[in-house]
This record gives sequence, structure tokens and C-alpha cells, in this order.
Amino acid sequence: MTTPLQHGVLFTDLYQLTMAQVYFSHGIADNEARFEHYFRTYPSYGAHRAGYCVSAGLGPLASRLERYRYGDQELAALAHMRSVSGAPLFGKDFLDWLGANGDFRRLTLRAVPDGRLVHPHTPITVVEGPLALAQLVETPLLNHRNFATLVATKASRVKQAARSGTVLEFGMRRAAGLGANLATESALVGGADFSSNVGASHKVGLPAKGTHAHSLVQAFIALGGAELDAFRAYARIYPDDCVLLVDTIDTLESGVPNAIRVFEELRAGGRRPAGIRLDSGDPASLAPAAARMLDKAGFGDVPIVLSDRLDEISISRLTEKLARDADDPDRIIGRLVFGVGSRLATSEGAPYLDGVFKLTAVRQDHRWRHAFKRTDDPAKAAPPGRKSLWRLYGDSGYAHGDMVTLAEETPDRKEEDAPEPLLEDAWRHRKLSGEENLQAARARRRADMARLRAECSDLVDPEPYPVVRSPGLQELSDRVPAAVMIGEG
Amino acid sequence: MTTPLQHGVLFTDLYQLTMAQVYFSHGIADNEARFEHYFRTYPSYGAHRAGYCVSAGLGPLASRLERYRYGDQELAALAHMRSVSGAPLFGKDFLDWLGANGDFRRLTLRAVPDGRLVHPHTPITVVEGPLALAQLVETPLLNHRNFATLVATKASRVKQAARSGTVLEFGMRRAAGLGANLATESALVGGADFSSNVGASHKVGLPAKGTHAHSLVQAFIALGGAELDAFRAYARIYPDDCVLLVDTIDTLESGVPNAIRVFEELRAGGRRPAGIRLDSGDPASLAPAAARMLDKAGFGDVPIVLSDRLDEISISRLTEKLARDADDPDRIIGRLVFGVGSRLATSEGAPYLDGVFKLTAVRQDHRWRHAFKRTDDPAKAAPPGRKSLWRLYGDSGYAHGDMVTLAEETPDRKEEDAPEPLLEDAWRHRKLSGEENLQAARARRRADMARLRAECSDLVDPEPYPVVRSPGLQELSDRVPAAVMIGEG
Repeated sequence: MTTPLQHGVLFTDLYQLTMAQVYFSHGIADNEARFEHYFRTYPSYGAHRAGYCVSAGLGPLASRLERYRYGDQELAALAHMRSVSGAPLFGKDFLDWLGANGDFRRLTLRAVPDGRLVHPHTPITVVEGPLALAQLVETPLLNHRNFATLVATKASRVKQAARSGTVLEFGMRRAAGLGANLATESALVGGADFSSNVGASHKVGLPAKGTHAHSLVQAFIALGGAELDAFRAYARIYPDDCVLLVDTIDTLESGVPNAIRVFEELRAGGRRPAGIRLDSGDPASLAPAAARMLDKAGFGDVPIVLSDRLDEISISRLTEKLARDADDPDRIIGRLVFGVGSRLATSEGAPYLDGVFKLTAVRQDHRWRHAFKRTDDPAKAAPPGRKSLWRLYGDSGYAHGDMVTLAEETPDRKEEDAPEPLLEDAWRHRKLSGEENLQAARARRRADMARLRAECSDLVDPEPYPVVRSPGLQELSDRVPAAVMIGEG
Repeated sequence: MTTPLQHGVLFTDLYQLTMAQVYFSHGIADNEARFEHYFRTYPSYGAHRAGYCVSAGLGPLASRLERYRYGDQELAALAHMRSVSGAPLFGKDFLDWLGANGDFRRLTLRAVPDGRLVHPHTPITVVEGPLALAQLVETPLLNHRNFATLVATKASRVKQAARSGTVLEFGMRRAAGLGANLATESALVGGADFSSNVGASHKVGLPAKGTHAHSLVQAFIALGGAELDAFRAYARIYPDDCVLLVDTIDTLESGVPNAIRVFEELRAGGRRPAGIRLDSGDPASLAPAAARMLDKAGFGDVPIVLSDRLDEISISRLTEKLARDADDPDRIIGRLVFGVGSRLATSEGAPYLDGVFKLTAVRQDHRWRHAFKRTDDPAKAAPPGRKSLWRLYGDSGYAHGDMVTLAEETPDRKEEDAPEPLLEDAWRHRKLSGEENLQAARARRRADMARLRAECSDLVDPEPYPVVRSPGLQELSDRVPAAVMIGEG
């Protein structure tokens, strides 16, 4: 299979190319420019909203950009595009320039690395380089970073709700086409322990996880057998990985008793059963009931996988109830495995992150000139200037806020603040394997979660995390140059 | 660029492969099996729900399945997968079978073609073929069909709301990674007239559409120019495709007057301006105000593109208001162009379709045996048997309902019903170009929309569309064979 054209550098919005040609024709395509990517609001899932986001998608973005080329095929496709007048939309000189200069590795790409916690109105990805090229990177950058950060955030919330339970990402069946792979990778960064996605798990060096579907039991029954025969057939092939789906007929009357029979057979052969899966009914009653049956049969350590329309809210309701009511909450919660599908892979309730990519400065004659934007909607105004992003820590080790400064500024260094710069060279991880990148991202998230005050990570009604602008940036933002005053020009 | 492993046949959930190996080891991998794909509920967007869905994703699915191969790389990756015991998860004999037999073109694939209207609890995609292979197709099938149908449905609703206005799909920036391409293709099937997505538009033979971003104006201002200079530079390169974004500074005070100056210059050169774009503020007041300014300057036919957080509800509010209040509603609505982004590409409010893929029959000894499923949740029960799907029309030409029958049945043919079979061979379009497939799908949607009673397509509170089961199917569904009764086995 060759890569289809629409997966390469033509994976873009038309206006990036038309603008690039204007810059080229106007002789400013190679002026150095600064664009900054930030999101405006935390994902809001209806009755509740996130109190933090988990940066993700940078690794996949960098490896994609590194391979993007305006090759013969791409340039031929562009050369065939037509104006409504019938004339070519793109001139040969511009396409030649693209072919010769359209290598995204020429851009400086700095970002808050995958796995770190990020907040609204802070520059989490910044690009510097030739104006036309920096413009052209907008679509793939926003596409990868917005969606990945969104799903990593949802996964992190799910993992919080699961407490000591395990989280599996099961979302491919309802995810957005090939975007399912980015959903999986991002969920694994954000908090999912494993995924059912074979290809994406392979890429990041994790074993894919799974059980079986109802169809296995149905097939055996249709061919004259019974649920028990299906379970035995599965156990025979996977004696050490045997997770049995127990709700095809009746969970407590048929599925669990049959699973226990098979588990006893496995145990007699010196094997350790891997779990049962409940895919329907009320988990708050079924999971403890199934656990009691397993316990009684001596399978007190066998995991119980839940997989029916889960999200962070339904999971936290369940784990809270168990923490309150169960005899041994730690044990039952610790044996639960949450297979979270559609609602994770699509970030149900908040299916997109409102990240934008704004020009903040252009260089001419060795001097950076600030780019301003006014609009009729103050929420859409973009602060000018090349910025840096810092995290401030208190004595306790907790982050007490993020500060956006101008690039040349350092936060006033009060002793207790210990400002940490958050933007790093995004290219530098490109030689790492998928596995190394994932493990590093997970370590960053764990470290950041440990330094986030608990009130800011509450699943419902989190406290606002402080984001402040440095005095220098605030002063610049308040200035509006004559050229953007109304009536000029 | 070579195709990454995770875009090929390993784009699947692990359990499809583990089940396939059980079927193989049990000697039933080649038994013919029937799986049926249906969704359970219309997308429900919060306060409103869809009254129909638009089938989509079949073309992309078929062309993907046609190219899937268990080649050396894929088989090597599978051979490296390990049980928790450390032993290989997949045996060599099974992998050999996969390599030799894992060609999805061996499957019979029948479906309601892209563009046709479809309804819950009807088999919209059916697969027949070797049990293991039919099982393995589940993940890519659900992934493509569910998401594509969801987005096509949203696009159709947006197109309804837009009335005579034009709809552009602008969603790449917030869409799910490469899933953005499937979103674009599906939106174009469902009702979007064009898209900004260059690669996906190229694939289906449509021109990509776009304007410019704020960054163009900002760059010119930062370099010492003004909004007017940016507009002039754009118009110089695109005299016949000149759509100007007018809200970088102030829509009515700066953007529109500057656009009119440039349009006058274009007109003086014999060119026809292509439009203005409003990306912020209240379109219900700004669009008519901008229209009046354009009219006064003699640009009464210049389109007005709106692109700020639109969906079918905000668009229908606007078009309803204009239909009620505007002096010449048809003219102003007809010149509006709706650039719909995030909320279309992610189907905001209902980000996944709950489609499932269920085993309904397996053949042994030349006889089909029905596959039953009970669960603790009646909504998740799956009716058995190989089914067909028909649409019934009244004298008026309107569809008065869909009927699900057993495959060997034909609906009782009352004269007025004129039952139309809806399932077609999904492979037969595979030799068509992307363009031919899109145009055919759009024609199907138009024809079906014209035959859907208006009450069923209302954007809010649509009337239920009747879906009935034939008496034969109902009788079979009510039967539960001894083997799935509790306690058997």
C-alpha cells in the first residue's frame, strides 16, 4: 500500500496554501514569523468541566511533519487546481518554491511536551520560521495537537476515576476512522494503561489487550454447543490470558458460573485465569455479586472487566460507591478493569478542543514586529508578541500557577517561585522510539499530577488553576498600534 | 512515505484476532457466517435528535478492505505478540492460515449504499463469509461506517438548516487526526457542498474552498502595512477567487469598507469578487448589515461566508430569522455560505453512532443456524437470522417505513407498498473513482430526502419513522432455543 495523497502534505486547509502564495508573491514568504498555539477553554463536558489538560500529539505531529514533502505527486495535484476563472490557482514559481523550500524541518518547533499538564491561554506549541512555511504548518499542527490533548485529558480523568483500577482504551469501533490511532496513542499518554488497538499498541511497544465478543459464544451455541463450550475453547487456546465475557445469556445465572467452571479447570492445570468481562447491566450490583461468586470459588484475585458505556463520571460513581459500601474497597476496586470505548475516543461531551494558532510576530530588518488582532469578540482577541511559558512552584512542591511572559523576560524570581520553563524543542525527541516517547510522556504526566493541587483536578467543579501574564506582556497586550486602529490604511 | 503498520490490516481490536484463532483451532474458521451491522438510536444532540441518518463510509471501507493484506510485516508483528506467560499469542499454523486466507475480498459485503437514508434497528451493512474472516472485518467496518454515517447525518442537517445557502466543511483543525479525511468525505456525501480539505477534496474530484486567515492581515500590518494592503495583495493573486476575511480589526468599520474598496478595484478590472467572510460577532445583525453595505456599493450578488462556531441549530435560527424579517429573504439566504467546522467534523452533541456488528447465523452441513443473544439489557439484545431490508412507498411517492424481513422473505406485496430492497453489493462500486462514488451518493441522498416526509426530517422533534419487522422475523426473534436458556451446557 502506498500512502494516499490525502495522508501527506496535502492534509491541509486550502487557505494555508493560498496565503502562502500571497506571502511568496509579496516577497515576504521567507520573513521569519512566530505563530503560537493555545486553547481558550478547558473541555466542558456538560455538567462538569476539566480542571487541567494533558498535552499530547506532539510526538505524532513531529514524526508526521518530518516526513511531509511537496513531492512530484503533490505538486502535480496543486498544479491542477483551478481558479473559478479556469486559470491555475497556483503559479509555477510558487510551486517551485514549495518544492524547494517546503521542508517543515526548517521550522523551529517548541512545545510543552506530551504528558505535561497544560492550561488555557498559554502558548503550548510555538513555531518560528519562514512565514509561508510557518503558516502551512497550522492545519496539521492544530489537527494533531487539539485532538490528542483532548483525548489525553479525558483519559486522565478516567484514570483518576478508576483509582487503583486498570483502564483499557476500547474505542476503535466508534472512533473517527484512522483518527482512532491518534485517540489510542493519546489515551495511553493520558492515563489508559493499555488499548485493544493492535496497530497503535504495536507502535508504542505495549501489548494490545482484549477479551472476546458475544459472537464467540453465539457461534458455539448456533453450532450446537453452549456457552461453556465457547469458554472452554477460548481457555484452551489462551490458558494464561483467559478473560471470559459472561453476559451473552445471563451474567449471574449462566456466565459467571460457567466461567468459574472453566477457571477451575485452568487452575487444575496450574494456570491463572485472567478475568471476566461484564458488558451490560448495572455494574454497581453485578460487579460485587460476580466478585463474591469468584471469591467463594477461590478466585479472589481474578480481575473483573467492565465495558458498558463507561466514562469518568460513571466510573467515579461506581468507585465512590464501592469505597463507601464494599467490605474491602481497595481489593475490589483494585481488581476492576475499565474498558472505556466510545466516550473516551471521542471525548464525549466535549468532542473538540478550541485550540487556535495565531501569528504573534514577524521579523523584518532584523527586528521582530508584533502582530495584533482585534475582533468583534473579545474572547477571540489574540495577545501579540513572542512569548514564553513558565510554571511556578511553591515551597510545598505544588504548582501554584503558570505565567506567560515575553520571550526575552524571565519571571521575577521570588525565592519561592522556582520558575520552570515549559517549552522545549519538539524535534529533539524524534529519534526516540514510539515506546520511549510514550514512557517519557507517562512519566511527565505522573510527575505533573503529583504537583497539581487536588482541588484543581476534581472531576466536577475543579478550582481554577491560576494563569497570569507578566507585566511586560500585559503592557504590550494593552497597546494597539495605529495601523490596527479603525480607519487607517 | 510507506504506509505505517497501524493503517493496514492491524488497524483492529485484538479480540478479533484472538477469536479468529479460536475459530481456526476449533475447525470452524471456514464455516460460513452472517454478521449484521445496525445502529440502535439516532444521534441525539442534547435537546434535539436526528429523525434519519445518511449512510456513508461504505466506499472508503470497501477500498480499504480491498487493500488489506496479512503480509510479511503484519504477520511478523503478530508472531511477536506474547501471552502473559511469555509464549507466542498466535500459533504459526493460524498465522499461516491468515496469510493464505486473510483476503477480505472473499467476503460477501452488502449494504445500504452511501447517501441513502437509514434508520435504527435495520441491517445497514451485512457480511457473509468464512466465520474468522467475517469476524475480523468488524473493527474496520464499524470504525468507518459508524463515524461516516454520523458525520453525513450532521452534514445533512446543516444543509437543511442552510436552505438555499451553501455549506462548506471547515473542520480539519479540530477533527480527529487523519479521521479528518473521513469526516470531510462523509460531510460531502451528507450535504456539504465543498470542503477546505485539500487532499480529501482532490480524492473526490471537488475543488477545495477557502478564504484566508487573520494571520494574512496581521502579517501585513506587522510589516508596516494595513488591512487594505493585505486585501489588495490577496486580490492581486486571486482576482477571481477573492473572499476577504473582514473581522481582523472591526467588521463594519474597517473590514467591509476595505473589502468594498478592493472589490471596486476588481470590478474596474472586469473581475467578479467572490465574497467576504465574517468569523466573529452576531451573524444575525452583522450579515444583514454587511449585505446592505455590499448592496449599496453594487455588490448585491457577492456571497457572505459565515464561519463562527456554526451548527444546524445556529444556522437554522439565522435562516429562520432572515426568512421572517429580511426584505428579500431568498436573496440574502441564497448568498450566505456557511463554513461549518468543529461541530460538523466531530458531530458535536452526539460524537459517536452506536452501531454494532452482530453474528446472526452460522452455516454448518449446508444449513444456516440462527445465532441468538440474550443479555441483561433488553436494549442490547440482537435479533437472530439472516435479514433483508426493504423500503415501502405509498402512492404519494413518500417512504412510509422500512421493513426488516428474513432473507428468504419478500414483504407482503400490497399494491401500494412497492417494496424496494435496500441492500446492494458493496464491492460493485469499487472500480468507480472517488468522484463518481461521491456524485452517486449525493444523488441518492437527494432522491431519498425528497421521498422522506417532512415531519421526519425536522431538525428538532422529528416524528418517528416507522421501522417494522416482518411476521416471520418477529416470530423468530421471540423464539429462544434451548441452548441459550439458562443452565444449559
